[in-house]
Amino acid sequence: MTHHSPTPEMQSCIDACTECHTVCFQTAMTHCLEMGGRHVEPEHFRLMINCAELCQTSANFMLSNSPVHAAVCAACAQVCDACAANCDRIGDMEKCAATCHRCAHTCAAMAAMSGHGRLTGTAKHSAH
Amino acid sequence: MTHHSPTPEMQSCIDACTECHTVCFQTAMTHCLEMGGRHVEPEHFRLMINCAELCQTSANFMLSNSPVHAAVCAACAQVCDACAANCDRIGDMEKCAATCHRCAHTCAAMAAMSGHGRLTGTAKHSAH
Amino acid sequence: MTHHSPTPEMQSCIDACTECHTVCFQTAMTHCLEMGGRHVEPEHFRLMINCAELCQTSANFMLSNSPVHAAVCAACAQVCDACAANCDRIGDMEKCAATCHRCAHTCAAMAAMSGHGRLTGTAKHSAH
Amino acid sequence: MTHHSPTPEMQSCIDACTECHTVCFQTAMTHCLEMGGRHVEPEHFRLMINCAELCQTSANFMLSNSPVHAAVCAACAQVCDACAANCDRIGDMEKCAATCHRCAHTCAAMAAMSGHGRLTGTAKHSAH
Repeated sequence: MTHHSPTPEMQSCIDACTECHTVCFQTAMTHCLEMGGRHVEPEHFRLMINCAELCQTSANFMLSNSPVHAAVCAACAQVCDACAANCDRIGDMEKCAATCHRCAHTCAAMAAMSGHGRLTGTAKHSAH
Repeated sequence: MTHHSPTPEMQSCIDACTECHTVCFQTAMTHCLEMGGRHVEPEHFRLMINCAELCQTSANFMLSNSPVHAAVCAACAQVCDACAANCDRIGDMEKCAATCHRCAHTCAAMAAMSGHGRLTGTAKHSAH
Repeated sequence: MTHHSPTPEMQSCIDACTECHTVCFQTAMTHCLEMGGRHVEPEHFRLMINCAELCQTSANFMLSNSPVHAAVCAACAQVCDACAANCDRIGDMEKCAATCHRCAHTCAAMAAMSGHGRLTGTAKHSAH
Repeated sequence: MTHHSPTPEMQSCIDACTECHTVCFQTAMTHCLEMGGRHVEPEHFRLMINCAELCQTSANFMLSNSPVHAAVCAACAQVCDACAANCDRIGDMEKCAATCHRCAHTCAAMAAMSGHGRLTGTAKHSAH
């Protein structure tokens, strides 16, 4: 096949998103459901499922060489950050938190390479 | 059932995203593939498929009452805008363009209600 | 647009799958997580999330006028049946159970129209 | 974490489905769109996109330790077979065809382990 392959940076980001989808979804649907208690608190469980889905979508944007992948990577970085922070708070979620942190970092870098800032801090206040 | 229902604004945005997913995906996979020519140009076809998927993800975030739906709505507004503009350029895509415009407008309003600016214009330059 | 539209039967099945996705996913992520207890039992919650996702996939196959939609409709009928039965057992899930029953019925009819039997009863024993 | 991990057979099937999703979706959205011609024929392109999505759904069922994964694995085996055969007919799709063949084989075995026959041959005629 002769098509244009992803850059090494984009391939790393695809891999990080795919891994984060897998870890978040599998952990939520097995570990969290089986442990119960704080692991099925609405806010925590929603972040896990939402994060898993957005990582999958972000990976699919990059796999398709989308002209607008940066917007999704920026959002994905923010949701992964929120999920990682929540996992740290809940506890007993070290692998998931580490995977989310890695994915957030890679997605933020991918968004920035395309002119998108990370959607936190002053960015949202100066937007209109 | 006693759970908290979406606000009317959020329900409208869920409906707009669901409609935009349906119209973009169905149009791409039937009309565009059957017409061929400019309708299967990579940039156009990618925007159609990417837009459909992100609208589905955005709807799912809001259906789950996600604490982080605004980030995805903001990204969705931007991708819908890009898809609408591309449909206008390609031509013979009026229904899809109108649906994308409507969804972009609703998602941008939903993101703004939650403190997220639209991810365009000066926002990306002032981010860091 | 000039593309071939879905038959009325297929359009009904697309609508039933879209509705079932929405109701199962929203109910799981709001009602079930907020109620807790038996509503977050692993088997129940998995069926809700799995059923929601397969209904979405089934709708997308039909929206794309897929040559192989019958296989997915047959599987969807079976998963919707299982989810409906489980909702009846858990209780306080009437709307979701009714939606799953309707979707199972429509998907089974769609699969049968295309030469696929419902994937239950003797079918699985005679397969090889 | 203490949750029940997938069996080696199920882990292999998850990996095969994830790989098949990635290869089919990326090949469709880059190679096929960039090559054009027979690579964007409706039947071929639909099978590629449909196969990619069902593999993703099948992987997610197994990642969640779903009680009804066998129905989806059986459907996935059939769709992967159809996609592989179509890739062989179109030509210049060797990697994708091989990946689909492997995934079809693994999914059929996973379905059979759970009492589901492969959804081909006489099965559909004897179903009711």
